[in-house]
Amino acid sequence: MINLNVKLEPLTQEAFAPFGDVIEIEGAKHFPINCGTIERYHDLANLDIDTDNGGRAIVSIMSCNETRELPYQVKVVERHPFGSQAFFPLDSVPMIVFVAPAGDAPKPEDFRGFITNGRQGVNYRAGVWHMPLISDRKGQCYLIVDRAGPGHNCEELHFSDHVITLSN
Amino acid sequence: MINLNVKLEPLTQEAFAPFGDVIEIEGAKHFPINCGTIERYHDLANLDIDTDNGGRAIVSIMSCNETRELPYQVKVVERHPFGSQAFFPLDSVPMIVFVAPAGDAPKPEDFRGFITNGRQGVNYRAGVWHMPLISDRKGQCYLIVDRAGPGHNCEELHFSDHVITLSN
Repeated sequence: MINLNVKLEPLTQEAFAPFGDVIEIEGAKHFPINCGTIERYHDLANLDIDTDNGGRAIVSIMSCNETRELPYQVKVVERHPFGSQAFFPLDSVPMIVFVAPAGDAPKPEDFRGFITNGRQGVNYRAGVWHMPLISDRKGQCYLIVDRAGPGHNCEELHFSDHVITLSN
Repeated sequence: MINLNVKLEPLTQEAFAPFGDVIEIEGAKHFPINCGTIERYHDLANLDIDTDNGGRAIVSIMSCNETRELPYQVKVVERHPFGSQAFFPLDSVPMIVFVAPAGDAPKPEDFRGFITNGRQGVNYRAGVWHMPLISDRKGQCYLIVDRAGPGHNCEELHFSDHVITLSN
């Protein structure tokens, strides 16, 4: 077994650009609405819903059934070839993100680990490899915007030769 | 001027059915994913994006620029004829909702006022009249999923003959 230790980096739009969008108000296009009582930070994620092939955007909530602490060993990642997938925490909590660019055979060294600032969400581009959600609080919820439609839209990759450990 | 006092009701899916969807995990279809580590509460809002006419789903954030307390006087409502509009608070805070069914000339008496439990979002059906966001905290943020595309997709209605007051 090969050990690979990944130190989590603060999430920034620049660093995350190969993988998708950071959903946040900092640096976003914005304008006032409703007589200035509300500021709208507009169109923050490139949703790829594959509507030409019967895809549609859906809103879901995911809740963590288990508590996971750092350091954390990543055993599996997944990708959704037919659509993007956006996550936003429903409390102002940091989210841990472990990603590799779209492609058929990512190497463990292709992955990067990030931690959000609690006021950020992410939108994974179609096909981008990512670790399933983990949280240090059981019951932590996230709002999800992704694709429903025909086709098998989830593939997993198990790390059998590497022990990948994420840490602060 | 005619005074109309509206006492806010707790938001339930049943009461909100004429106006759209309550986005919440209670009572929702759900199933485990990622080896049971995550529970997915699936497809919680009927997004109406009008894709046939060039509409697309977008994700935005709205932030309240002002602090508004109850009792609160509603002076204006709006509707979006070409698409649904979903709101979810980015902290576990109650949201105040004031709505009337879709239609060209709602009367003040057609409106109902609700308050969420802090773990609920709402999705307004296309054309449903609703009050703009208010919050008792300046800077409170909400994630929005609505429609971008051609056409003028916002109409306002000002109450000139009524003083409508929302209260707990």
